[in-house]
Amino acid sequence: MIFSRHLQSLIDALRALPGVGPRSAQRMAFHILERDREGGQDLVRALTAALDNVSQCGQCRMLSDEPLCGVCRSDRRDAGLICVVESPADVMAIEQATDYSGRYFVLMGHLSPLDGIGPEELGLELLEQRLASGEVRELILATNPTVEGEATASYLMDLARSCQVRASRIAHGVPIGGELEYVDGGTLSHAFQGRLEIK
Amino acid sequence: MIFSRHLQSLIDALRALPGVGPRSAQRMAFHILERDREGGQDLVRALTAALDNVSQCGQCRMLSDEPLCGVCRSDRRDAGLICVVESPADVMAIEQATDYSGRYFVLMGHLSPLDGIGPEELGLELLEQRLASGEVRELILATNPTVEGEATASYLMDLARSCQVRASRIAHGVPIGGELEYVDGGTLSHAFQGRLEIK
Ligand SMILES: [Zn+2]
Ligand SMILES: [Zn+2]
Repeated sequence: MIFSRHLQSLIDALRALPGVGPRSAQRMAFHILERDREGGQDLVRALTAALDNVSQCGQCRMLSDEPLCGVCRSDRRDAGLICVVESPADVMAIEQATDYSGRYFVLMGHLSPLDGIGPEELGLELLEQRLASGEVRELILATNPTVEGEATASYLMDLARSCQVRASRIAHGVPIGGELEYVDGGTLSHAFQGRLEIK
Repeated sequence: MIFSRHLQSLIDALRALPGVGPRSAQRMAFHILERDREGGQDLVRALTAALDNVSQCGQCRMLSDEPLCGVCRSDRRDAGLICVVESPADVMAIEQATDYSGRYFVLMGHLSPLDGIGPEELGLELLEQRLASGEVRELILATNPTVEGEATASYLMDLARSCQVRASRIAHGVPIGGELEYVDGGTLSHAFQGRLEIK
């Protein structure tokens, strides 16, 4: 590197971010060093603070600054409902789009035996404790409609049943506002199998 | 923010990067905190080192770890040629794609009187000193083929002339491998005006 070793290291470090290729890493590095050093300092501070302070909620495994996240601490959230999702991004999406007022359980993945990800890696003993407590009325399965997500949902349904807790699966089908013609075959097939009688 | 204030601050700081919207900032923050804390620490280190050590070359204004960049220090680069570009990314592109072996001058922008960017903001007194030294044979104008880039090139051509240095402009036209039909009108018009006789 005939110009700057530190510039090259910065470009390499930015490339580790998801969705950032060589060109955009270069553009980001130049932007920070030429025009937005203050923004670069902000990013250092925010990243350091997040790495030092954000860990997982001890009850639901959501990312949290505290030992228990805000949802688990709140007595305005229905402890009788637990919605299981694969990732923190799913929690954010549900919080933003729905008025769901129960609690969560974040798997941080899905069952994937070939990758060595079993019930233990997903923290399912934590979930089982909550189901066994007698406090939970319904387990809402909101894992992704993929092969792994469905397999995980099926495993969780059995877990709920063994604890005598009702399980439900969020509906899948043609997206609202979507056009049939552009929906993928799997979704369309799912929408037909899951059709509801009109009364 | 019912989950994590530090997570939200990290998302906000990532959004300041060019080309990063709310969804990708969220994806990056989750990626770092869930799966790549080591990569996050690397980014903190690289960013801190770059902010502390990278500044501009005192001669050509390229980003550099040293008072003079590698190109300006090298006696294997022809000091009789200076290529003027708008940004460090242009220098990188030229270094990667061509065998240009002269030196550079990086404007870090272009003339833009309405934004208060005149010759002083572009460091042109530095360039004028080099042109006046008698060492420079040719000033190669590689500013962008935009209105501002052309105006800047025109100003620099006058500057070179006043120092009795020959100026040249890199060629613009239909990109090699490009199809006429997909080239924008301005480029096509430029390619016609700049046509060369076949001998
Ligand atoms: Zn929680
Ligand atoms: Zn230099």
